[in-house]
Amino acid sequence: MNAIHTLLHPRSIAVIGASADAGKTAGRPVAYLQKHGYGGAIYPVNPRADQVAGLTCYPDIDSLPDVPDVGLVLVAPDRAIEAVGALSRRGTPAAIVLASGFGETGESGARRQQALKEAAGGMRLLGPNTIGLVNLTDRIMLCASGALEMESLQGGGIAVVSQSGGILGSLLSRAAAAGLGFSKLVSTGNEVDLEAADFIDHLADDPATQVIALYMEGLRNPEKFRQAALKAARAGKPVVVYKVGRSESGARSAASHTGALAGEDRVYDALFSQVGAIRAQTFADLLDIPAALATRRVLRGKRIAILTSTGGAGTLVADSLGVAGFETPPPGPETAAQLRDLQKNDQIVLDRNPIDVTLAGLQPELLRNTIATLLDSADYDAVITIVGSSALAQPTLAAGAIAASLDRSDKPVLAYVSPYAPAVLSNVNRAGAPAFTAPESFAAVLSAMLARTARENAAAGAGAAGAAGGHAGAGGASAEAAAGASASGADAAGLPSGSLNEAQARALFARYGVPSVGERAVADAAEGQREAQAFDRPVVLKVLSSRITHKTEAGGVAVGVAPEAVGEAIQAMAARVRQRTGIEPEGYLLQEMASGVEMIVGVHRDPQLGPTLLVGLGGVTAELFQDTALRLLPVDRATVGEMLRSLKSWPLLDGYRGRPKADVKALEDAVLNFAAMAGQLGDRLVEAEINPLFVQEEGRGVRAADGVAILK
Amino acid sequence: MNAIHTLLHPRSIAVIGASADAGKTAGRPVAYLQKHGYGGAIYPVNPRADQVAGLTCYPDIDSLPDVPDVGLVLVAPDRAIEAVGALSRRGTPAAIVLASGFGETGESGARRQQALKEAAGGMRLLGPNTIGLVNLTDRIMLCASGALEMESLQGGGIAVVSQSGGILGSLLSRAAAAGLGFSKLVSTGNEVDLEAADFIDHLADDPATQVIALYMEGLRNPEKFRQAALKAARAGKPVVVYKVGRSESGARSAASHTGALAGEDRVYDALFSQVGAIRAQTFADLLDIPAALATRRVLRGKRIAILTSTGGAGTLVADSLGVAGFETPPPGPETAAQLRDLQKNDQIVLDRNPIDVTLAGLQPELLRNTIATLLDSADYDAVITIVGSSALAQPTLAAGAIAASLDRSDKPVLAYVSPYAPAVLSNVNRAGAPAFTAPESFAAVLSAMLARTARENAAAGAGAAGAAGGHAGAGGASAEAAAGASASGADAAGLPSGSLNEAQARALFARYGVPSVGERAVADAAEGQREAQAFDRPVVLKVLSSRITHKTEAGGVAVGVAPEAVGEAIQAMAARVRQRTGIEPEGYLLQEMASGVEMIVGVHRDPQLGPTLLVGLGGVTAELFQDTALRLLPVDRATVGEMLRSLKSWPLLDGYRGRPKADVKALEDAVLNFAAMAGQLGDRLVEAEINPLFVQEEGRGVRAADGVAILK
Repeated sequence: MNAIHTLLHPRSIAVIGASADAGKTAGRPVAYLQKHGYGGAIYPVNPRADQVAGLTCYPDIDSLPDVPDVGLVLVAPDRAIEAVGALSRRGTPAAIVLASGFGETGESGARRQQALKEAAGGMRLLGPNTIGLVNLTDRIMLCASGALEMESLQGGGIAVVSQSGGILGSLLSRAAAAGLGFSKLVSTGNEVDLEAADFIDHLADDPATQVIALYMEGLRNPEKFRQAALKAARAGKPVVVYKVGRSESGARSAASHTGALAGEDRVYDALFSQVGAIRAQTFADLLDIPAALATRRVLRGKRIAILTSTGGAGTLVADSLGVAGFETPPPGPETAAQLRDLQKNDQIVLDRNPIDVTLAGLQPELLRNTIATLLDSADYDAVITIVGSSALAQPTLAAGAIAASLDRSDKPVLAYVSPYAPAVLSNVNRAGAPAFTAPESFAAVLSAMLARTARENAAAGAGAAGAAGGHAGAGGASAEAAAGASASGADAAGLPSGSLNEAQARALFARYGVPSVGERAVADAAEGQREAQAFDRPVVLKVLSSRITHKTEAGGVAVGVAPEAVGEAIQAMAARVRQRTGIEPEGYLLQEMASGVEMIVGVHRDPQLGPTLLVGLGGVTAELFQDTALRLLPVDRATVGEMLRSLKSWPLLDGYRGRPKADVKALEDAVLNFAAMAGQLGDRLVEAEINPLFVQEEGRGVRAADGVAILK
Repeated sequence: MNAIHTLLHPRSIAVIGASADAGKTAGRPVAYLQKHGYGGAIYPVNPRADQVAGLTCYPDIDSLPDVPDVGLVLVAPDRAIEAVGALSRRGTPAAIVLASGFGETGESGARRQQALKEAAGGMRLLGPNTIGLVNLTDRIMLCASGALEMESLQGGGIAVVSQSGGILGSLLSRAAAAGLGFSKLVSTGNEVDLEAADFIDHLADDPATQVIALYMEGLRNPEKFRQAALKAARAGKPVVVYKVGRSESGARSAASHTGALAGEDRVYDALFSQVGAIRAQTFADLLDIPAALATRRVLRGKRIAILTSTGGAGTLVADSLGVAGFETPPPGPETAAQLRDLQKNDQIVLDRNPIDVTLAGLQPELLRNTIATLLDSADYDAVITIVGSSALAQPTLAAGAIAASLDRSDKPVLAYVSPYAPAVLSNVNRAGAPAFTAPESFAAVLSAMLARTARENAAAGAGAAGAAGGHAGAGGASAEAAAGASASGADAAGLPSGSLNEAQARALFARYGVPSVGERAVADAAEGQREAQAFDRPVVLKVLSSRITHKTEAGGVAVGVAPEAVGEAIQAMAARVRQRTGIEPEGYLLQEMASGVEMIVGVHRDPQLGPTLLVGLGGVTAELFQDTALRLLPVDRATVGEMLRSLKSWPLLDGYRGRPKADVKALEDAVLNFAAMAGQLGDRLVEAEINPLFVQEEGRGVRAADGVAILK
């Protein structure tokens, strides 16, 4: 039996430092265990009390009559270390340490945390700096959150994994007030041992859990998270994640564009999308989206019926949905006729949506039958019921009508509560229809439901070979990408270290199957003038230097230089570059002028999450418009295709406004080969970038016209 | 005394159709008037009752003992028309008609609405299809909203003007639960007579009102709204507006890019920004932002102190603020020392922000002194206090500490309530510190406060000449723009009607002072070949046709044609254009190839709001990237400068990456001249566009290289 199962289902619990005063934090856990009906043995440990809450209190851990399944450690940091040592020595499988003052408080705290880890030995630890965990399926509370004071803690299908104890308490109390239920909630705190990914992995197998809400501050072990999230996705239990640390994006400096464009937070976006996790954009989404997904009702399209008993609020919701790309079409003739039959008042207008029954009055039967008609209608994929101020006097009306309709369809049924009416909100949620008080919630929630349907359809289509999220597994991607580069037989061992100059970088890329523009490298103006005779059209002249990454700013790029003027242009460039940068050029490149759509392709190593691939619109304005897509490596062809099609500039590749289509197949090949190169070079590759990569007309291939590579 | 003042302060009220059953909608208004302590005379009118709520009931309007100040008409549509007629005949100054079933329900309703208007004669009308109005300053309720059942309706500085009655009720009940107070609330309904702008105009003069929250579905009279909003801005009473109808943007078709780019909703954005109104992006913002602005506390910078008694929630708020560009710097040495003196526990880390006092425990004095220290500190511009789950047991702690600190500074003091704790929320709001439950609220609210400071500083700087919002008044703008075009002495009377071809359009623009590229118009290949000898470099060849707006798609543009190949190129183009469009070219243009930054400048007439000016990055990709700024005309030079600097592509004009700066002064001149042209042509100009307008290096001016103009 694994430690997490034991933590969630202990047969006995020792509460170290339990206080006889239930008003104190240290008095809460025993009180909460009893209040919510824990059936196992509770052993309070406190040398200064004989009894705690009617239970025998033990002076120390060694005196316990039995080895507890779990030790819940409430004492201050230094004594917590002792207690953990004693629990471990007695053979306790797992302990929870609530105290703060460890790794989160600086160096001395970090030393304490190390001592705690050593004291635990083979015993598994949750915390320190955690508020504990709550198993609402079995009503076992190993938790000190004041939110457990609430009377109406409901079981349900949402699991919470939070790296913050305060956020766990916030979600617990907000959900309880809204009538939403949880399966398990755990705060992982400083994660000295057990971490969020361990609990996600466990909850993917938990029959009571339908969806996992994750509050994330950072990842200690990205690969473990990736595997756990993919497992949850395969089990049909989406992970909905709210991650802080967004504002650090862009704060890092990097040598290339790719580094500046691939800000840390975007890498998390890529990670989440690649493991099929849904990112909550607002804190409210972290409850709203799970509430909707936990119903397991299925959204198959974008046509939403809005049934309202108040004017403005229906418009508010319809407008929010419209902004997010959902449709609120009027009822078709058949549905309109059915609605007409339900209602006698001819002032009701039935060719509109929101379908307004204000004038018909709020009769339970009418409401029920209208919801049923809309659910049955082939015109709609989901139904939203709007509850107005008149419902304040009838707080069970909407909930009753909705509850009576749910069984006839698996389409989503949602509700908007327009006035402040917590009882209505709670009643409707308990009836099984997620209810929200913000009109913006519906777009977030329905988008997540639609994404889930798409992912599950894709997974079903991909069959045994496909992983969740529509991405092929790492193995397949590497295999294909590697195949594209195999002809070159490139050998990383023979490569130099450090920053390569442009010609070296493009030569490296060419070895992996990324074609370059035609060019000649020359040492000086005289050689340049001689070699220029090989070109019959104007050329691009560039300075060659491994120390100059941004050649344009350095005055090191001249476009459209006539072959006969190359010598003079090199002299001017040399003077300009020296003056602007103080760097002596290593030489110069004469390049044929390529044409086509300018793209940027880059690989950058995120310090946390590993190598990333960036593809986007290139050229000197790449950083200005930031029209790029980002994924973690490895990627497969489908992912690269998806990245390209997500760009605003995709139409430029796809025959924009009568222009010829660009060679997208060759672009995909080049990107896959570039990615394969990154895979083969592994840790040796610090970063690499092509900008611009000219994508020529269909059938004419691509040409790298610049390159940056840094090896170590 | 004007009608709106009378509506808000009636000395006597006739309630037509008052029901003796307070449970019915028609029974509510008299009950609410009495419940909230109305001191004037109430005359219920109902032929089927002798008494209503203890008051004498009159059988009809003619029997009333006195002419009422206001008639509140509760009866159904047809009888409402009769009642309005009778009230008007007796000389009642104003009436409110609640019934729906008028203009909002189609043709027969529109006829009823016209009859209602005629019946009113000289009497002013609010409604129909309104829930009425509420004067909380004087506690006069002319309103049937169920939200008035609430006991705790507080007076305050926020006024609400809503085109929906349901939204009024929603705001009223949500605010009451949150402890926020209102001055006046009015629902304007179908606006057969009095409209939202009338009330904004009135509220700008209302001493009890500090800020106006506006729920808008559409504008009947944009100029009236503009004047009212400017008046409110001048009075220091910002209008915060939530407008629906956003999802209709982009749905309109138009002949030019400008039309497609200037979707209706963006025009409202332009209008709001030009009158100094603040747009609420979420429905919650419509209460949150007014709550903060009503305090009249002043935000002077972006440095925010976060004081927390719970871990995660402080991070949540800091992260949201960071995403929006606010800073949460750690306390400087002096402030840290002062904080240290307040606290004994050395585990508190004071070189961080959020400043976490979890370990110090929740003592009122500590909290009060910490807030005071942070408010006094020169390190911070505002203070946010985070209330955690431990506050559930002490719902007045935070409110008390905050209230005690407010007087020592005019910096904003705000609070975040992390658990579900409606009592805490209400207490803190009543204490005078806006409290929110969504971390995202702070960025919205503080951004609005900062914008207000900037506007007020700008208005103070501009002195008597400047209008609110940093924009000069319409008069000044027209004068300057007109001056730029005066040399041309252009005369709209001489212009042809219909769609001009490119050469005609640019000739028109040139008359108003927008320079064009050098060019020759030719009829056919033979003439083209001859005229090409005048060019010594490759040219741009274009088809000339007033029927082809998008020449690129039609195959009607060829770039870099050598002079000697022009004849051949014309023949190929003629064939291509005929094949793709079936249109016979009117001729061809040979243009010199201009260079520089390609911009788009357009004028488009919004059917609701009038002529708009669009400026942005041009070229064939203009619609792809939509990097544009939009304003309503007229504009002045400062506004044009602000538009250019708001573009993502602004750096391209400003010497991006070592390139020479573009001639921004000439660009501004051209835009102002183009805008002046639109002003002089007035209604005759349907739309006009230059794309691309080449902006050359500083001192070298601009060149229009294409043009569209449609006149009527």
